[in-house]
Amino acid sequence: MCANLSGWYLQGRLTVNSAYNTSWYFGPNALALARKNMTYVSIRQEAHSANIAIVEAGLVVLTWGNASVADRQHGVIAIKPSGVSYSDLSPETMVIVSIETGEVVEGEHHPSSDTPTHLELYRAFPDVGAVVHTHSRYAVAFAQAKKPIQCQGTTHADNFRYDIPVTRSMTESEVSADYEAATGRVIAETFRERQLDPGEVPGVLVANHGPFAWGEDAQKAVENAIVLEEVSRMDLYTLTIKPDSGPAPQYLIDKHYLRKHGSGAYYGQTR
Amino acid sequence: MCANLSGWYLQGRLTVNSAYNTSWYFGPNALALARKNMTYVSIRQEAHSANIAIVEAGLVVLTWGNASVADRQHGVIAIKPSGVSYSDLSPETMVIVSIETGEVVEGEHHPSSDTPTHLELYRAFPDVGAVVHTHSRYAVAFAQAKKPIQCQGTTHADNFRYDIPVTRSMTESEVSADYEAATGRVIAETFRERQLDPGEVPGVLVANHGPFAWGEDAQKAVENAIVLEEVSRMDLYTLTIKPDSGPAPQYLIDKHYLRKHGSGAYYGQTR
Amino acid sequence: MCANLSGWYLQGRLTVNSAYNTSWYFGPNALALARKNMTYVSIRQEAHSANIAIVEAGLVVLTWGNASVADRQHGVIAIKPSGVSYSDLSPETMVIVSIETGEVVEGEHHPSSDTPTHLELYRAFPDVGAVVHTHSRYAVAFAQAKKPIQCQGTTHADNFRYDIPVTRSMTESEVSADYEAATGRVIAETFRERQLDPGEVPGVLVANHGPFAWGEDAQKAVENAIVLEEVSRMDLYTLTIKPDSGPAPQYLIDKHYLRKHGSGAYYGQTR
Amino acid sequence: MCANLSGWYLQGRLTVNSAYNTSWYFGPNALALARKNMTYVSIRQEAHSANIAIVEAGLVVLTWGNASVADRQHGVIAIKPSGVSYSDLSPETMVIVSIETGEVVEGEHHPSSDTPTHLELYRAFPDVGAVVHTHSRYAVAFAQAKKPIQCQGTTHADNFRYDIPVTRSMTESEVSADYEAATGRVIAETFRERQLDPGEVPGVLVANHGPFAWGEDAQKAVENAIVLEEVSRMDLYTLTIKPDSGPAPQYLIDKHYLRKHGSGAYYGQTR
Repeated sequence: MCANLSGWYLQGRLTVNSAYNTSWYFGPNALALARKNMTYVSIRQEAHSANIAIVEAGLVVLTWGNASVADRQHGVIAIKPSGVSYSDLSPETMVIVSIETGEVVEGEHHPSSDTPTHLELYRAFPDVGAVVHTHSRYAVAFAQAKKPIQCQGTTHADNFRYDIPVTRSMTESEVSADYEAATGRVIAETFRERQLDPGEVPGVLVANHGPFAWGEDAQKAVENAIVLEEVSRMDLYTLTIKPDSGPAPQYLIDKHYLRKHGSGAYYGQTR
Repeated sequence: MCANLSGWYLQGRLTVNSAYNTSWYFGPNALALARKNMTYVSIRQEAHSANIAIVEAGLVVLTWGNASVADRQHGVIAIKPSGVSYSDLSPETMVIVSIETGEVVEGEHHPSSDTPTHLELYRAFPDVGAVVHTHSRYAVAFAQAKKPIQCQGTTHADNFRYDIPVTRSMTESEVSADYEAATGRVIAETFRERQLDPGEVPGVLVANHGPFAWGEDAQKAVENAIVLEEVSRMDLYTLTIKPDSGPAPQYLIDKHYLRKHGSGAYYGQTR
Repeated sequence: MCANLSGWYLQGRLTVNSAYNTSWYFGPNALALARKNMTYVSIRQEAHSANIAIVEAGLVVLTWGNASVADRQHGVIAIKPSGVSYSDLSPETMVIVSIETGEVVEGEHHPSSDTPTHLELYRAFPDVGAVVHTHSRYAVAFAQAKKPIQCQGTTHADNFRYDIPVTRSMTESEVSADYEAATGRVIAETFRERQLDPGEVPGVLVANHGPFAWGEDAQKAVENAIVLEEVSRMDLYTLTIKPDSGPAPQYLIDKHYLRKHGSGAYYGQTR
Repeated sequence: MCANLSGWYLQGRLTVNSAYNTSWYFGPNALALARKNMTYVSIRQEAHSANIAIVEAGLVVLTWGNASVADRQHGVIAIKPSGVSYSDLSPETMVIVSIETGEVVEGEHHPSSDTPTHLELYRAFPDVGAVVHTHSRYAVAFAQAKKPIQCQGTTHADNFRYDIPVTRSMTESEVSADYEAATGRVIAETFRERQLDPGEVPGVLVANHGPFAWGEDAQKAVENAIVLEEVSRMDLYTLTIKPDSGPAPQYLIDKHYLRKHGSGAYYGQTR
């Protein structure tokens, strides 16, 4: 299958949908999980689906990406194991970690080395149900240039109400002490200090590193990661055509954002 | 299947052709439509084919695109339902809307939220038989830079006789009052004020939004949407090589345009 | 199948190889040709293979490309019919045209509207056995910028010994009189006036139009068209990194060119 | 299959993995090799897998790439034959060459014309177990611009601890005397004079030519070749967004590099 970004929009979309086809999953995997007395079946399946979906979206190079899904009721997340090839992933290989303590609750593997970053985001943003981290190339370029992804049009406005910010550079002590947790704290600091709502801006660029995106559930977090990469790409092209190109009028941005979000939304089949 | 732009030119072309293979369609779909007492079979099929074709062309991200086809005799269009995944589309899910009143004449879904834009185009441009809207990334970049797609060569000239214009920015009152209809009116205004023939320039960029393309029928509208994206891409590359690159000589542009259009055309198998 | 350029390098290569698998072709096609009393079987098959190969290489948008192959002994070429979808092509649909008179010798279709350009090249360059024309996007960008593709490295040097030139702009009278033939004449003029050997520089950019490439046979002409596009792409990236980047040393270029060409060649399995 | 870079990250990864599935290989190939009394089975298989993997990674245009694998115990390498289409490669077609003398020890074909370059690298870098050379387009662009690939972020830092250097231009006498061996010597000189550890910077750009990458084994060398191309691409985009963009803080780079390398590594499943 072709996993380049445009291919994904067709292929990956189907993948995400089918990944949520419970019958397909609930069969073999549930048995496998049962055999191993594993629980948290649902978030294991959603985390696995999300990790596969970001690969098929072309957002992931080698093993440079990870997705997690939260079970807020039980205070745990399911997250990708560290450095395992995507072809070897399954719901059983997902690792269950406590949001509060960071300890592994269930699972045979080490969790992603980025787990402390995910945990800090779940702690700081109580409405977030899933987190996606990739090194998607256009978003990484903006992170390396330490330049926010400016909201230049309605494509951006449909999912992100404002510019997508870049964190400050982390200090040497933050990096040496507890790097991954500090990464999550500097993201939370970015939103707190700029008074941004993580629901209205469901993603961020970590300086000299790359993007994190999130959402109320796995499918929304994956979608936001795709949109973040796509608008990065469009923004780069816009800057190539017109280096001093400015943002779209805020009233146009708000119109598009509010067509899809909140009580006045009139996009889609639900009214 | 690989739906990246270059892939499409091979794959998508075949798809468009086979989509117009009536026997393939007329079978199951006609039955399904008959079972539901649905009419406007032909434009339902063409609108469905066009919506699938723009996805396979790699012009569509997630659900950011929609195509409609007109039945001028009955004064209606068939258009994509709003926010429905392309994998769930079929001729039956297309929505039939009155060009004059904008009311849903037949269909179980809400029509695309961009329907009022399509309707304004059908009202303003009487020879248009199909309309395509996408967020294809190179065209969006020019729309965000608010820079017309300059006619720099014969690739552009084969389908578009002049530069592809950008609309003026819409006012806050236009956006707040009836945004989607106003988008169509500002496109019509652009062509009226610049005295452009929508037959000679079958596409436009809406400022800070993206491209609309059209044609006498669905296949031509899809082709024009592909060409619009392709020449946007070539134009961006040309500007990268030579930022002050100018247009091609108009006599060369006219020559290529008229090889394919009008009474003197001598391209293809018909003479 | 995925026809993007990188995909092609794997896929297309196999395709070209298999296209030259005579047993595969000689079977059904020879029968079909025999039934229609068609001759020039070999060049019909090679021209068909070349036209399919440039599509699978991702060099062709819609129907914007054509390839021809010469039978010098009989003074004819086989060329793609005009405006026919690639999915409808076969060796039988190729059109046989006289190099000297330009008249159709055998075939049911109109030849490509660019046939007079191909014929001028066969007349001006007696060692050329096949010609390929595309609108491949990176090469078109240089043609639109009217900037030669500078030989900046060994990738270029392996197939093209010097910069790939751009023709002068054609005059209004050339365009209005016999445009396609004049296009071929201005290419020949470019090589004559700059004293370039079409064997050492097997391609050119026509100002505000696009690339033509050629070779001793169909497979070599297709390869040169691919290399022309690839080095255009590398050159554009090089200019993005370093706008004033200069050429590679000529002694390095000559070394690479002569590793593969002439009596001193030592690349490949033949010595 | 789709071999574009993003596709590769999923497809190619699986390919590399499966290529190392000994049972799959050891069966037929071992028999074929036995029939021909061939030895060095393991490095023949690994070299074949690596040559296929770089094609599926989209790193290779036409036949512009080659990989070799060393058997240090016996002082030989297995390397791709010269100018043979990737579709015709098999473990049997790999050529066994002596590292010390450069003579063909076993094999029916001429070895890659770049063999002397590979040999110089094995001689200069005793810990290198495999070498990969491609003309991957983003890396070639930096080689043509003679600009190092700057370490601007954690993506680069995970595999390369410092900037990826460009060699000096080779002299006319180096090129005329023994070009390919001199290419290897100028790479070794680059690392020696800049006191770079080829283990910490497992790749280089040869001025006006392209990239070479290496690693302790075939899979690692292929991975480094992919990362080299990917960070070239990200670096080009970063320079497009911010032409004067600087490097990431060295303490961040070291942190990421040391998460994956050395005694303190804590990435992956091994601790």
